[in-house]
Amino acid sequence: MRAAVMRGKQLVVDDVPEPEPGPGQVLVETLACGICGSDLHCLKYPEQLIEAGRASGAPFIFDVERDVVMGHEFCAKVVELGPGAAGVEPGDVIVSIPVLLTPDGVTGIGYSNDYPGGYGERMVLSAALCLKVPGHLDPAKAALTEPIAVGLHAVAKSGIATGQSALVLGCGPVGLAIIAALRRAGVESIVAADFAPARRDLAVRMGAQEAVDPRQEPAIDAWRRLDGARSLIIYEAVGVPGMIDQAMRDAPRNSRILVAGVCLETDTLWPALGITKELSLQFVLGYSGEEFAAALEAIAGGEIDVAPLITGEVGIADTPKAFEELATPGAHAKILVRPDLG
Amino acid sequence: MRAAVMRGKQLVVDDVPEPEPGPGQVLVETLACGICGSDLHCLKYPEQLIEAGRASGAPFIFDVERDVVMGHEFCAKVVELGPGAAGVEPGDVIVSIPVLLTPDGVTGIGYSNDYPGGYGERMVLSAALCLKVPGHLDPAKAALTEPIAVGLHAVAKSGIATGQSALVLGCGPVGLAIIAALRRAGVESIVAADFAPARRDLAVRMGAQEAVDPRQEPAIDAWRRLDGARSLIIYEAVGVPGMIDQAMRDAPRNSRILVAGVCLETDTLWPALGITKELSLQFVLGYSGEEFAAALEAIAGGEIDVAPLITGEVGIADTPKAFEELATPGAHAKILVRPDLG
Repeated sequence: MRAAVMRGKQLVVDDVPEPEPGPGQVLVETLACGICGSDLHCLKYPEQLIEAGRASGAPFIFDVERDVVMGHEFCAKVVELGPGAAGVEPGDVIVSIPVLLTPDGVTGIGYSNDYPGGYGERMVLSAALCLKVPGHLDPAKAALTEPIAVGLHAVAKSGIATGQSALVLGCGPVGLAIIAALRRAGVESIVAADFAPARRDLAVRMGAQEAVDPRQEPAIDAWRRLDGARSLIIYEAVGVPGMIDQAMRDAPRNSRILVAGVCLETDTLWPALGITKELSLQFVLGYSGEEFAAALEAIAGGEIDVAPLITGEVGIADTPKAFEELATPGAHAKILVRPDLG
Repeated sequence: MRAAVMRGKQLVVDDVPEPEPGPGQVLVETLACGICGSDLHCLKYPEQLIEAGRASGAPFIFDVERDVVMGHEFCAKVVELGPGAAGVEPGDVIVSIPVLLTPDGVTGIGYSNDYPGGYGERMVLSAALCLKVPGHLDPAKAALTEPIAVGLHAVAKSGIATGQSALVLGCGPVGLAIIAALRRAGVESIVAADFAPARRDLAVRMGAQEAVDPRQEPAIDAWRRLDGARSLIIYEAVGVPGMIDQAMRDAPRNSRILVAGVCLETDTLWPALGITKELSLQFVLGYSGEEFAAALEAIAGGEIDVAPLITGEVGIADTPKAFEELATPGAHAKILVRPDLG
């Protein structure tokens, strides 16, 4: 089958072996798969991702010398059931957390040499983990379940209360999902910051009170101007070195910084600042199965409108180009890979 | 009056101006004052402490070109009341949080050019902040109120529950105070680590289940051997670069790291580890007035026995030598400066 393949730190389009469903697994046809910032990081720093996987037990362990078909934000259609697979039928449109249960253990879909992710035409998934997508929901929107679940999880882990205020640094898909999740949680005071005008517009559409260009006005100053009184949680959703340090410098005393941006490089910070301000840092990744299901429900029920987040759709052939475009973000939030587009 | 004076990154013994009590203040005679690790850091990196003070609003702002009499862990006897001072009488033995209320605002005692701390013969304190020391309590022990309050605060901020376990990295005064506070909070599973045998003995005396030499057995391995099942909070009480990174590498998934060690240098860490393990870091400093009062009560009531922590007593003349000894910690936990010793 055709796929966009990570091969030696390059993304190339090639034919790869057809996946075959094992016990409890289903073969699915990819309908849409979002390109995630983590995949851009992974292409650049695969060794660091693997090292983090080894150190933490997270399922990001693969052989960098062998092909990987990435893609973990997918919506797909069931084609064929493997032995003993139950709960779904051929033709069902489904989403799933990007995890595969195999006889050898749990594997992360999208970061595996053996099981392709959503940048290919077909995948195998665990039947038990599939959630059916309601018939009225566009599969392209359903593919946003995963990033929205990331937002729901980050907001839940931050422990924010409705009376607190939020400063969201970075309005890529993670930052935008956090803004949507903050609104869903009843938080009204949300200030966002991003260099790109299009992303700032999206931040406001998703529920931010105001979105500023940090070159024009430092994010923390904007928060002081608009609110400044309530206790603050800062959501770091950029994921480049220096952002945690910046958030610690910005943070008022006793505030919390939620680190959702995936920075794979080493980073420098100044503990004395954390100490004298008594800051807390909460790092987050992923979501629970319940949060993933809640994200699908929020999208399907219209509680979170993900349509504005989809800023591009490409076929497999144009996936490498989409990666390049996303490396210098500007107009884009989420680009979906749609194998039916070629 | 005589004092050990920080002058140009050196500690020298000299005469300094006699302090005079202003409105609401009292003149006191220092009975005992503990040497704090922060003071060792301050002598080496005063600019960084001042910069952290400016950035955070913490009261560590002074002119490094002018003299500073440090010392913020004191027990003292009231000598004379300034205008309007009330609540204490000459002859009362007292402790106080190291903060002075002045007509110009709040100043940190021990990090001020204008108000000497406890490494001098006399200080001025705010009458309203003084707590009377019960007659039966040795002033040397009462001087431990401040570091014990640091331990109580760190444990409270860590949010540890009795069923959780604790790993304490570093058995200097902060680590030992944390161990005492953990025991007071009902935590039974406490593993400690320190290079120095004498400090490891103290850790066990203060309530650690076991204290290991991390060169012989990594602290986290010792915890796994002794417990390993309960959810863990790691208390970082060393305060040198690299410790936070080490704690993040050691930490099990979803655990919390309480950063109590005061590191004034910049530090390097690897966010990917925090992210993939979903760790949280809580930085702490100081204590509340209530925690300070609770520390005095715990010492006075015998709930926390601080006697083992006092490993040395010196006069003002020998304070510089005591600083040198503490720079390569081994046998010592807390050395007290006692002006009556010369």
